[in-house]
Amino acid sequence: MLERLEDVKAQVQTALEEAMSALPPGELTDAMRYACIGGKRLRAFLVMESARLHGIDDADALPVAAAVEALHAYSLVHDDLPAMDDDDLRRGLPTVHVQWSEATAILAGDALQTLAFGLMTDANLPAEVRVNLIAAFVEAVGARGMVWGQALDIAAETAVEPLDLVAVKRLQGAKTGALILFSATSGAIMAGQDTGPLTDYARALGLAFQIQDDILDVTGSEEETGKRLNKDDAANKATFVSLLGLDGAQEKARKLSRHAEVALDPYGEAAGNLRQLARFVVERAS
Amino acid sequence: MLERLEDVKAQVQTALEEAMSALPPGELTDAMRYACIGGKRLRAFLVMESARLHGIDDADALPVAAAVEALHAYSLVHDDLPAMDDDDLRRGLPTVHVQWSEATAILAGDALQTLAFGLMTDANLPAEVRVNLIAAFVEAVGARGMVWGQALDIAAETAVEPLDLVAVKRLQGAKTGALILFSATSGAIMAGQDTGPLTDYARALGLAFQIQDDILDVTGSEEETGKRLNKDDAANKATFVSLLGLDGAQEKARKLSRHAEVALDPYGEAAGNLRQLARFVVERAS
Repeated sequence: MLERLEDVKAQVQTALEEAMSALPPGELTDAMRYACIGGKRLRAFLVMESARLHGIDDADALPVAAAVEALHAYSLVHDDLPAMDDDDLRRGLPTVHVQWSEATAILAGDALQTLAFGLMTDANLPAEVRVNLIAAFVEAVGARGMVWGQALDIAAETAVEPLDLVAVKRLQGAKTGALILFSATSGAIMAGQDTGPLTDYARALGLAFQIQDDILDVTGSEEETGKRLNKDDAANKATFVSLLGLDGAQEKARKLSRHAEVALDPYGEAAGNLRQLARFVVERAS
Repeated sequence: MLERLEDVKAQVQTALEEAMSALPPGELTDAMRYACIGGKRLRAFLVMESARLHGIDDADALPVAAAVEALHAYSLVHDDLPAMDDDDLRRGLPTVHVQWSEATAILAGDALQTLAFGLMTDANLPAEVRVNLIAAFVEAVGARGMVWGQALDIAAETAVEPLDLVAVKRLQGAKTGALILFSATSGAIMAGQDTGPLTDYARALGLAFQIQDDILDVTGSEEETGKRLNKDDAANKATFVSLLGLDGAQEKARKLSRHAEVALDPYGEAAGNLRQLARFVVERAS
């Protein structure tokens, strides 16, 4: 699986650089390119493996994988803004607004969202399929998905009471879960097949991923994660660790990881990489 | 033409409200809805008239018109942010970040962009047509279109020398011209027909529109325009008025308006509303 992840990383980087080489030179394009450097590319990996499971060629799925990473990059650039999470470090580098300016960060994020839609529109798939993908993408990243989750997160910061477990799950299901769900089911959408098993997989995986993020915020190192840590505790924010305790959170993450693996049963051996990803997500240190 | 404009306004408002009624209740959706109140709806009018000229029903064109206005609303919300143009008044109301917060304004803008793509994706047009529309929309609003123009505008504010006429035309052609061009040609794209005459029309119209904006920034009233004025002069920004003088700018706007009218000749009588719009744009006081 790690070999395939490296391969996907390289393919996605090339696709993103190619898309951005068509943009006018200047600060905006520089900032967009910078925002797309690095990252684990787990979402792209999900797209590529989901596509492969459904008989879709890498070359046809690649624009969708690149779109998901461009969208994710936009969300990080905006999340890091002073008015949002106010972060100065991301993927081991100064954040975009630190490196350039807030204005450039706002615009680079805006343009990365547009670029993501452009990549998906240009994919070498039937028009009907592209429309279905774009519609699912809109659900995942808009005011019923990722951005809604981010709004709930911002609102939670000023709430009198910390959120309870149900509310944190709902928040994270939208903020990080929806794009993971889109990525994991995208191959089934491309092939016009049942998204059921991968939906089950993605829900468990997304939650496990977020719990591990909360665990790493407490136990991780800034060097390994490449971002500022202990921010949730400092902000008195409810997390899976604050709600379940460290041991409870680790146990919950492991259970979800196993649940995700089992959800892949209908795909048999072919889903080996996605099974390994479910283990990787809760074992990672970055 | 004014009757048709009022009719388009009402149709678009209904379409936007319907789209937003499907979003979860809360501050984010409230801010999105607020950002979509009012406006001249000239871009929506261009879409609807362009569609009508090409035999496309209002009902089929409406989601595209609503998408263009949602996209325009997002651009205004982000442009008004403190890190950008720092405006507190828009369409006669406090701007979104003043009414709520910067975080909510960033997220509401982000979600309005997504909503715009969602509206276009859901339009009742063949999938191939929707893909073509979305691809043209991406060109118009991304890092080669509107957002690029906004980045050039921000860069100009800190430049040592004010821009010259060629640079201001390039900037405005991207910042406001590209979405006007998309809107005016969208009907031809929907019908799979030649976009040539409407491209010519839209280029002249967009420039005339921007020149009139610059004129109103000097001669207009905040009450009528619903936004802060004299900002360009205070920022020592190059505008069509600073470059051509007030008389020169008015003469140039009138010439472009006539050019736009002539470009519609191939459509004969059917383009009456678009011809009137070309006159309206340079005669308006708001």
